[in-house]
Amino acid sequence: MATKITGTGSYIPESIEKNEDFHNHQFLNVDGSSLTHPNSVIIEKFKAITGINERRYAFDHLTSSDLAFFAAEKAIANAGIDPEELDYIIMAHNFGDVKHNTVQTDVLPCLASRVKHSLRIKNPKCVAYDILFGCPGWIEGVIQANAFIKAGIAKKCLVIGSETLSRVVDKHDRDSMIYSDGAGATVIEATDEEGGILAHETGSYTYDEAYYLFFGNSNNKELCPDTRYIKMDGRKIYEFALKHVPLAMKTCLDKANLDIKDVKKIFIHQANEKMDEAILKRFYKLYDAEIPEGIMPMSIQELGNSSVATIPTLFDLVRNNKIANQSVNKGDIIMFASVGGGMHINTIVYQY
Amino acid sequence: MATKITGTGSYIPESIEKNEDFHNHQFLNVDGSSLTHPNSVIIEKFKAITGINERRYAFDHLTSSDLAFFAAEKAIANAGIDPEELDYIIMAHNFGDVKHNTVQTDVLPCLASRVKHSLRIKNPKCVAYDILFGCPGWIEGVIQANAFIKAGIAKKCLVIGSETLSRVVDKHDRDSMIYSDGAGATVIEATDEEGGILAHETGSYTYDEAYYLFFGNSNNKELCPDTRYIKMDGRKIYEFALKHVPLAMKTCLDKANLDIKDVKKIFIHQANEKMDEAILKRFYKLYDAEIPEGIMPMSIQELGNSSVATIPTLFDLVRNNKIANQSVNKGDIIMFASVGGGMHINTIVYQY
Repeated sequence: MATKITGTGSYIPESIEKNEDFHNHQFLNVDGSSLTHPNSVIIEKFKAITGINERRYAFDHLTSSDLAFFAAEKAIANAGIDPEELDYIIMAHNFGDVKHNTVQTDVLPCLASRVKHSLRIKNPKCVAYDILFGCPGWIEGVIQANAFIKAGIAKKCLVIGSETLSRVVDKHDRDSMIYSDGAGATVIEATDEEGGILAHETGSYTYDEAYYLFFGNSNNKELCPDTRYIKMDGRKIYEFALKHVPLAMKTCLDKANLDIKDVKKIFIHQANEKMDEAILKRFYKLYDAEIPEGIMPMSIQELGNSSVATIPTLFDLVRNNKIANQSVNKGDIIMFASVGGGMHINTIVYQY
Repeated sequence: MATKITGTGSYIPESIEKNEDFHNHQFLNVDGSSLTHPNSVIIEKFKAITGINERRYAFDHLTSSDLAFFAAEKAIANAGIDPEELDYIIMAHNFGDVKHNTVQTDVLPCLASRVKHSLRIKNPKCVAYDILFGCPGWIEGVIQANAFIKAGIAKKCLVIGSETLSRVVDKHDRDSMIYSDGAGATVIEATDEEGGILAHETGSYTYDEAYYLFFGNSNNKELCPDTRYIKMDGRKIYEFALKHVPLAMKTCLDKANLDIKDVKKIFIHQANEKMDEAILKRFYKLYDAEIPEGIMPMSIQELGNSSVATIPTLFDLVRNNKIANQSVNKGDIIMFASVGGGMHINTIVYQY
């Protein structure tokens, strides 16, 4: 018996926020002081590091659970299953539903309940819950679905990652340019086929690292001190990711008894293009191997960092040949890897 | 192999809010109109239905993850395990950390990460995640821990339910008197003993019921329309619970091949004393059986409804003989059952 991904779907918001749309922003340092460079230089530098040209923002009338529903509908259609057969809907996010121009997170009911409601699923045995696990939430949801299948309490699960980070950004923080909105969904099934999930690995680093990503005040000290936004210590995260992600990937590949030469594609959470390239480099260095061309598909240039949504969205795009020169083929060994707020790291080795 | 609860701990906030403390509140109807009865009558009626005399509020400087940490420390000590051996920390809540006198939910990092950080656990293989599943979140966390154990990916898990509902109540809503703060934690282990979790059952009812509990505006129409609070349609929830909870409990008992006469204790989520008594009555009616005296321990009179925390707290109190004339003994068949926002229902049949 294997656990396989039998359907994927994604929702990419139509509203495009280009780098030039930030030209009139008043960016400030953490201490509230002005930046020395003009915005044109700041944005150019930002682009050079992150690779991001533009990002997507959800329409004002939509929330994270709406995006999740749109992606879920597509994944279910792609899998060709009856949604009433689902045993679980596992919804990964970080900030719940945040209405446009408000500051409160709405998670009552949990977003999985909302998605199930929108899908018009009647079967009460379909358990709908949310998982909070930072950006690695979607991968962790897949790992949990796999555990439920192995434990004999599920056969078909829908795992969704959805986020509207545009609703929780501090406009006075340069890092706000990184964040994006989107949703990706996947149907996971127990099958008699070979392959599927071959190994997985998760780590939660909280001793020193718990607050590398945190909810904090605006860099603009004149704004309400009770209102908080997504904040990060980018430098520490970069160093942390470089140190731990390649090792976690190797541990996982070892578990699956595979060599780096077997790997055909690597889908890494897209937080920052330079960071992902550095992770890849270090991963291949662990094996003294050359990085094969096109091994790591990317969509960050156009889609930014939509947290839990980046991997399932990217995987869906590649499966549907929507990324130039990228594809996955039956039998391919692929890897998923993510790192994010918590700090959490996880990775899956999967035979397509 | 069995999955057993090997340690429990709870944190009951020291600040007591008595019914008389609500005498000066300005309670309003949903449409903003004044209530016809004086507060003394409203509070008397409230007491007669819910059984609540007083409730607990967390100290201003504490948040939900602090309460969770206090309960977790006790559960770990009670289990006598080294916290570094934990494979999972599963944290159930609904509103994250809400600082006193603010309106934002803070879930970055997830609360399980904060608890793990406070416990000073170094082992990164201890996976720390949050689950949002309404009031049944703690039971669902136990079910997930059991699945991880059965799937062979965990041996020891810490499952916590913690909530500070006092931070999300609308003071102009009579229902605000129901809600309370607290935390309960449990260590779940794979053991060679007999008993433990014998059966479990979960249902998510979202077709018509998803928004029976929701995040809504104050009854005081003069307050900020962007600020929302925990709100419920009490009548619908009552009818829903009476219809579905007893049946879910019977299905679970059937799965375990047990008769109602075998059941020694029933720990029901304490949302409302009259509702719990009606659920119990209907459950026993399904078997044409008499309700044994003392079968359902209660703490709602003094502790109110602390959501995910009510069952693990109550179970901890009974295990420690802190509820008059209540105890659990080795070999006893006990049941856990919960219902809440989502709407979700779950139940576990357990041999102590």
